[in-house]
Order: sequence, then C-alpha cells, then structure tokens
Amino acid sequence: MTEAVVGPVLIVGSGLLGASIGLALRRAGVTTYLEDTDAESVRIAVERGAGETGLAGDPRVVVVAVPPDVAGAVMADASRRFPSATITDVTSVKADPLASAAALGADMGRVVGGHPLAGREVSGPAGARADLFDDRVWVVAPLPGGDPERAADVVALARTCGGVPVVMSAADHDRAVAVTSHAPQVLSSLLAARLLEVDDEAVAVSGQGLRDMTRIADSDPVLWRAILAANAERVADVLTALAEDLQRVVADLRERGSGRDGTSATLEVLERGASGRQRIPGKHGTGATDFAVVSVMVADEPGQVASVLVAMGELGVNLEDIRIEHVLGRPSGLIDISVRPGAVGVLEAGLRERGFDVRS
Amino acid sequence: MTEAVVGPVLIVGSGLLGASIGLALRRAGVTTYLEDTDAESVRIAVERGAGETGLAGDPRVVVVAVPPDVAGAVMADASRRFPSATITDVTSVKADPLASAAALGADMGRVVGGHPLAGREVSGPAGARADLFDDRVWVVAPLPGGDPERAADVVALARTCGGVPVVMSAADHDRAVAVTSHAPQVLSSLLAARLLEVDDEAVAVSGQGLRDMTRIADSDPVLWRAILAANAERVADVLTALAEDLQRVVADLRERGSGRDGTSATLEVLERGASGRQRIPGKHGTGATDFAVVSVMVADEPGQVASVLVAMGELGVNLEDIRIEHVLGRPSGLIDISVRPGAVGVLEAGLRERGFDVRS
Repeated sequence: MTEAVVGPVLIVGSGLLGASIGLALRRAGVTTYLEDTDAESVRIAVERGAGETGLAGDPRVVVVAVPPDVAGAVMADASRRFPSATITDVTSVKADPLASAAALGADMGRVVGGHPLAGREVSGPAGARADLFDDRVWVVAPLPGGDPERAADVVALARTCGGVPVVMSAADHDRAVAVTSHAPQVLSSLLAARLLEVDDEAVAVSGQGLRDMTRIADSDPVLWRAILAANAERVADVLTALAEDLQRVVADLRERGSGRDGTSATLEVLERGASGRQRIPGKHGTGATDFAVVSVMVADEPGQVASVLVAMGELGVNLEDIRIEHVLGRPSGLIDISVRPGAVGVLEAGLRERGFDVRS
Repeated sequence: MTEAVVGPVLIVGSGLLGASIGLALRRAGVTTYLEDTDAESVRIAVERGAGETGLAGDPRVVVVAVPPDVAGAVMADASRRFPSATITDVTSVKADPLASAAALGADMGRVVGGHPLAGREVSGPAGARADLFDDRVWVVAPLPGGDPERAADVVALARTCGGVPVVMSAADHDRAVAVTSHAPQVLSSLLAARLLEVDDEAVAVSGQGLRDMTRIADSDPVLWRAILAANAERVADVLTALAEDLQRVVADLRERGSGRDGTSATLEVLERGASGRQRIPGKHGTGATDFAVVSVMVADEPGQVASVLVAMGELGVNLEDIRIEHVLGRPSGLIDISVRPGAVGVLEAGLRERGFDVRS
C-alpha cells in the first residue's frame, strides 16, 4: 500500500468536500486541480489554495465530489476523459452511484467507491478546511474483481488527507450506514415530530434523554431526503425490522392496558437494546462502558467548568467525555465527567480537596 | 402558598428517593421520620441523617417513596393510619398509582400526586443525597376536586427539597412523560437492538448521532418494563402515532427503491421532526436553537480541553454546553462549544489569538 497518494489529483466538484480534499492534499505536497460547473465555486476554491485549474493530460486520481444523484454520471464522464486515472467519489451512499456509473459506461476496473465520514454544518468552498478529514473514518469500497492497485490509490488518498481508511464493499457500507446513520436520522425525526402534538407544559417536562434523542432531527430535511432516497431499500429493511419490534411492544402495552398481564415482549426488546448498546465502540475503539462517570455541581458562571478541568489536568487525569446536564430554574448545573475507571479515586479525592462539590 | 413545608414529614420507603428527600428536608430544618419494610434500609437511612424512627401522632405530610406497583396500596394504608396528614408519592407515573389508592379506600381529598424528575444510576439509601432535587422539576399532580391546601403542602415540600414545582393533572403528566420520556426510551432500545443484527465492521462506522440515540438504551430493562407497564395506554398511543409515520416512510422508501419517484412523505416527516425539535427548551428555558457552536480541535492530553475553557473564562464568555466528538485512530479530538450567538466573534478571535485551532 502506498503511504501517500501520487498526484496529480483532479477534483471534480469544488464544494465543501472537494475543496477540503484539495486543501488536505496540498498540505501534504500533492499537486491538485479543480473543476466545477459553477465557475464562482472554482474561483473561491482556487483562492483558498485548494488547487489550480487547467489540467493537461491524465491525472493519477480523479475525485468526484458532487451530490449522490449526479455522482454516477460524473464518474462515467471522468472515465471517458481520463483513460488511465483511478476514479473515486465521496458520497455517503455507495451502491447507487457506482451502479449508475457502470450503467453509463464507466470503466469500472478503475473505479473505487469512497466515503469520508466528515462534514460541516456549512456548505461551499468558503467553509473548506485542510483538516476536515483528520482522524475521520474514510470508507474505501473496491468493486468485486476491481484492480487492487486502484483501491490502494484511494486508501493512500484517504490517508494523505489525514483520514483513517476502512475498506469494505459498497453493499456492506450501505447496510452499515442504514443502521448507524440513516435509520437513526428517521427515528430522531419521528420522535421530534411527536412534540408537535403536545402542549408547552408537556414539552417543559423533558430531560436530557429527549434532548439527545432529537438532536439530529435538527438536520436539513432536503439533504436527508436525498440521502435516504439513495439508500432506500436498505433503510427500509432496517426500519421494517424496527417496526416489527415496535408493533410487538405496542401490542404488549395495549394488552397490559386492558388489565391483563404480560409485558414480556417489551422486556425482551429493552434487554436486546441494552445488549446492542454495548456494541458501540467508545473513543479510540474502546468499549462504550469502559469509562466511569464523576459528577460535579458547578455554578453557571464563566470559568466554572474550566476550573474543574484545570484541576483534572493538575491531577493528571484525562477527560474522556463531558456532559452538562441542563436544569431548570436556578443558575447552576451538574456536569458529568467520563474518565478511565482507575482514575476515579484520584479524581474524586483531588476535586473534593480543592473544594469542588463532587456528587458521586 | 407556603414557602417551606411544615413538618413533621413521614417518609415511607427509605430507598434512594426516600432517603434523599429526608436529607433534603433535614437540610432545611424540617423534622423527618422514616419507615421501610426493610429494617436494614431504614438503619442506613437514619445513619445517613435522613430522619428518625418512632413517629408518635400524625405527621403533616406522608411521602410514599415506594415502587409504582405498590404505591397505591401504601398510600391507602397511610390514609387510614394518619387521618389528618397530606399524602403524596414520588413515582414516575401518576394516574395508575392514584387510581389504585382510591380503589383501596384512601381518603383522596388528602392525596396529591408527585413526581420529582431526579434520580441516580445507583439505588438504596447509601446513594442518597440532600441535593438530588436541586433545580429539578418536581411535578405536583392535585386530584380534581381535591383540597388546594393539600396541593400547597406538596408544592412547599418540592420547593423545600430544592426542586422546581410544576403543577399539572395526573393525566397531563402521564401524557407528557409518555412523549418526553417513555417513548424515547422504547425507541432508543429499538434502535440499539438493531446493532445486534450487524457485524463489528458495520458498528465501527458509527458516529455521534448513533451514540446519542442509544445512550438511554443502557438503562435497567426490569425497571423500565415496570414504568412502561404503569403508563401502558398512553405510551402505546404515542408509539402508535409514531408507527403510522414510520409505515409511511417505509412505504415511501420501498416505492423509491422500486425505481419510482416520490419521497414526499419522508420529506414531510423530516420537516415535522425539525419543527418539533425547535420546541424543546434549552438551558434556563431558552429555545434549543438559541446557541451558536464554535468548534476547536484539541490534542487528547490532560488539560487540553481545560485550557480552551480557561481562555473562555478570560474572554468572559459563558459555556452553555460542550460536546466532545469521538474520532477514531489518532489521539486528538474536536470539541463543540455552545455559546450565546453574540459571543461567537469575541470567542473565535480570542481563541485564535491564543493559538487555538478554531474550526468554525
């Protein structure tokens, strides 16, 4: 496997992702060229230092950084224009665009799917950043029977951009994101939609759980409609399995409501959920339950949370995660600090010694 | 309305909530007595300073702090034993236990439902804390036609314990928590259960969204079965409405998968979700979208997050919320800092001046 991608790299599509790839590659000394149907977008990306225009000859790699609904056509076009280049894309769904490229006559021996798991709230080249992909998973999806050297090019591209390449098939990728990203998005929206059916008083009786569960419902509906449409069957499969469990819980609760006993299906779903949750990797690939939580009550004034973290630094305890619980009424707050279990004793004693209101 | 509750207060059930109420009331100078069928539990609670045993005569208030399935019977019993006391409970469902108390002959003119929205991961009097209810909503649910003086007693009790009393009917309470707490719990479990159906590689392609959406799936299945059973009909109503939306999305996606166009139902659900999310109050009752996010990349070493927050303190910018994005591979991390929108300019400039890697 190559350590760094060999240029020149042509990036077709100079939006947020395309321009960021340009910046990341330039940071590593790779020569990049840019194209976009929008001349203004290219102008901004060039001005930002993401690459140049006027490529002559074949690039080593073409990165197609356009929306999923046109990615296949642009890959097929690139395949015709550049007969020796490796061609990849960056869309968040893989099978659909690749099938579309094949149907439109792309030389699929040179095409490798790609999906960097990175993004920003903003779009366009003005928001591009050289470090957008640093430490992010970058899925590389080679096609069955494809040239391993082409896959190696895309692995090198991902690594050169600062990403962590993870090789999997397009189908495996799409099944994975259907569960880990697309179905959660739909569920979050479905739950948040219920809040339109209750009054203000009811919404006031809400805690951190509801807040966490509806955070991603705040995403762009039009963008998400396109993503879900491009992975429709796989998302529908996950949601169908989920709907079956949901129906069992509803039937179970209705039976209970009618006076009869029996919430065994509900219990079973809750138990499976607790088991499934254990599978999510924590920071740096450690298990989700590897950390212990220490709670501290702090005043809601500038510098209060900072002073706790400064004390942690003095104690040599690393912060794995932090949550601020939002409470109503009085200006104060409880913060939950996740640390390695072995550090709890030192941390609690050290914080108490410094006068902090440790709650656990 | 009384400012502080008048004692003595008898707490029946000396577990986590009962003992914590004892500690909170004693903190405020109120005389408390404890009872429990478990002598060892009472002994620990008394030792912790939550109250005394050996009450003579009628208490002013009896707080029934036992599980939902026995709360009704214990309230009815308290009503017979103490003919002048105000009687309340602390269970997370209201209509069921109150109906059960009435059916068992409790003097309902003196009974007022209660639900402090507070808890800990641990149970039992050893984990009790005087400040468990500080700044937490404490729902007070008077019965139709009940004595307003009795409701005032429970409002005073909540306030004396440090809580924020919110008066609503038992039915309104149960409908509210069905949406804001019980349905989210079921959905989180349903989603997390899907993770049992995919391989390790797929789970590795997961981000913060999935982590947030499955956090509460890590709760105690047996406890949650009991809570859901006690609010079965109302939770089933919410889940039924949600299942209808879900079926529409699935049908929509299947149609799309079959080659035809049309993801308008999906779009509509996503749009309703985004609207619903806007209804969740943020910290101190402000809207959820009132804060702006500034992202900073920090090294994964003790004190790195602290140094950012110290700089915020120096800049006089208050931290409204903080999130650490978990990335794979290399030891570094992106933190998202929520602040009031007016503070973004000062914060970004100040952090950059101090050499921080600001991303937004």
